Amino acid sequence: MSKYSIGIDLGGTNLRVAAIDGAGKMMRKISVGTHLSAGRDAVVGDMVTSIRALRQEFGADGLAGVGVGSPGFINMETGVVTGAPNLPGFDNFALRGAIERELGGAVILENDANAAALGEKWMGAGRDCDDLVLFTLGTGVGGGINSGGKILHGFMGMAGELGHMTVAPNGNPCGCGNQGCLEKHASATSVTAMARMLGLGAELTSEDVYRLAIGGNEKAQAVFGAMGQALGIALATMINALNLPLYLLSGGVLGAWDQFAPTMLEECRRRSFTFRNSKTRIEKATLGSEAGLYGAAHLPHVLAGN
Amino acid sequence: MSKYSIGIDLGGTNLRVAAIDGAGKMMRKISVGTHLSAGRDAVVGDMVTSIRALRQEFGADGLAGVGVGSPGFINMETGVVTGAPNLPGFDNFALRGAIERELGGAVILENDANAAALGEKWMGAGRDCDDLVLFTLGTGVGGGINSGGKILHGFMGMAGELGHMTVAPNGNPCGCGNQGCLEKHASATSVTAMARMLGLGAELTSEDVYRLAIGGNEKAQAVFGAMGQALGIALATMINALNLPLYLLSGGVLGAWDQFAPTMLEECRRRSFTFRNSKTRIEKATLGSEAGLYGAAHLPHVLAGN
Repeated sequence: MSKYSIGIDLGGTNLRVAAIDGAGKMMRKISVGTHLSAGRDAVVGDMVTSIRALRQEFGADGLAGVGVGSPGFINMETGVVTGAPNLPGFDNFALRGAIERELGGAVILENDANAAALGEKWMGAGRDCDDLVLFTLGTGVGGGINSGGKILHGFMGMAGELGHMTVAPNGNPCGCGNQGCLEKHASATSVTAMARMLGLGAELTSEDVYRLAIGGNEKAQAVFGAMGQALGIALATMINALNLPLYLLSGGVLGAWDQFAPTMLEECRRRSFTFRNSKTRIEKATLGSEAGLYGAAHLPHVLAGN
Repeated sequence: MSKYSIGIDLGGTNLRVAAIDGAGKMMRKISVGTHLSAGRDAVVGDMVTSIRALRQEFGADGLAGVGVGSPGFINMETGVVTGAPNLPGFDNFALRGAIERELGGAVILENDANAAALGEKWMGAGRDCDDLVLFTLGTGVGGGINSGGKILHGFMGMAGELGHMTVAPNGNPCGCGNQGCLEKHASATSVTAMARMLGLGAELTSEDVYRLAIGGNEKAQAVFGAMGQALGIALATMINALNLPLYLLSGGVLGAWDQFAPTMLEECRRRSFTFRNSKTRIEKATLGSEAGLYGAAHLPHVLAGN
C-alpha cells in the first residue's frame, strides 16, 4: 500500500490539516479556525492535535511524513518564519521546531505559495509539467516557482517573492517599502483599493467592482485594465527570464478573468519575444484554496525523491 | 594529464577561438574578424580552420570537446540560431549542424551571454558560486542564469533574456516590439541615445557622457541616474524572484560604475525586501570580454559532469 502523508495549510483565518494518500486522494480533511488571538503556542497545539488525530485514524506505520505551508519568508535551514504580516505573533518564530517538539517528530516547513505551486504540479493544472510559476492573487500576491519538479528556494529560501516585483516604478506604495509592486496592482485587495481611488466607493468588494465592469462602468473596467497590465508586465518578465512552459494564476479574483485577461495577454505578447515565439501557457490554476494543502502533503514525497 | 577544450566566441565583429586546459589556463587564442560580408558559410569555415589548427597543435587525443557561444536565441534541440540581429544572415541558420558537418565532429552551441555567465562561474567573479545571474551591458543587454553550476535554459533554450525585462512600462521603444526594456536604459548604446535625447550631442560615446558626468554636467548625470534606476529595478526583480547569492554586471560601461551604481543600489534596497535582508552580492564581473570564451570552452566539461 502506498503511504499517505499529512499536509497543513496555515492561513491567517483558517487552519486546515489533511491526510492525503500517495496517489493524491484526500482521505480526511480537518478545518479549524486559526486562533491567533490565543497565541502562537495555541495554534501550534491545534496543528499537533489534528496531526495526531489523523495519525491515529490512519496509522503511524503508513505515514510518509508531515508538511506544513505557512505565510511569510521561511528560513529553510532554521525553520524560522520571518516577515509574516498576516500571522501576528509569528514573526521570527521558530515554527518548525515548535511543532516538532510538541509532536515528537520531524515536519517539513515551506512557504504557503511555494507549497501551492507544488500542489498544482502534483494534482492540479501543472500535472504534466515539472517547471512552472504560480502567482497567487489574494489579499496580497504570492509566488512559487517549480524547477525540475521541485520548489526553487534560492540560497535563503526566499525565492518566488513575485508579489513584490516592480511593475510600475512610480506606482502605488507598498508596505514592503517599495512602490509599484505587483501586489499593489493585481491582488484582490488592490482591485478594491484602486476602485476606491477612482471614487467608486469605499465599501466595494472585488466582486462588486467586477459586476460594475461587466455592466459597462468605465472606471471599474480601468481597474481591471490596470490589473491586466501589471500581470502582463510581471508575466512577460518571468517568461523572458526563465522560459518555463507554464505560468498559473490562482485566487478568487480569477472570477474576473474576462475583464483583466485580454489586457494581460496583450501586454505579455507585446513585452515578450519569447512568449510570441514559443508555446508558453498562461492558465488558471485548478485546485483553488486546496493547492497549498496538497502541496504541503506532497513535501514528504519530494524530499524522499518520489 | 587533464584534457583541454576549445571555446569559440562568435561576435558581430570578432571571432575568437581558444584552447583552454582543464584548469582554466589559456593555452592559445586565435582572434580573427567575423567576415559577415563573405557569408555565413565563410564564417563557419573560419571557425573550423581555427579549431583544426588548435587540434593539430595540441593533439586530438587530449581534446575534451568544442563549445561555441553565439548571439541570438539558440534552439538547444536543433542547434538553430533565431533572432540574431547582430549577425546578419544567421537568422534561422542551423549553425551547430553546419559546423559539425564541416568539422566532422560534435560541438556544443550556446547563447553567448549564457556562455559568459558560465565563464564567470568557472574562472571569474563567480568561482565560489554555483548560482548566479550575469547582466552583460554592451550594444544591447544580455543575461545568463547559472543554477546549480549549470546554465538555466528553460524549455526552449530561451531563458536569461534579461535585456528585455520591462523596467519602465512607458519607457523608450525597443526593437523587440516592447517599450521600456532594460536594454533601452542600461546598455552602452542607451547611454549615448539618452544623452542625445537630452541634447548633449549626437556624436558622443558612452565614455564622453561619463566624462561629462564626472565634470558635473547634470544632464549626463541624469543619464547615469536613469541607467542606475533601470538596473536597480531589474536586479530587485531578479533577486525577489530567484534569491540567488550573486548578481554580476559586465561590459565596458562598467567604467562608469561610480556614476550609476549608487542609484542602482539604492533602488535595489528600496525595491527588494530580500536584498535588504540577505547577504546578496551585486558585483562587477572580472573576465571582461573573455568570459564568453571561457564559458564556451567550459561547456564540454559541464556536459561531461565535471
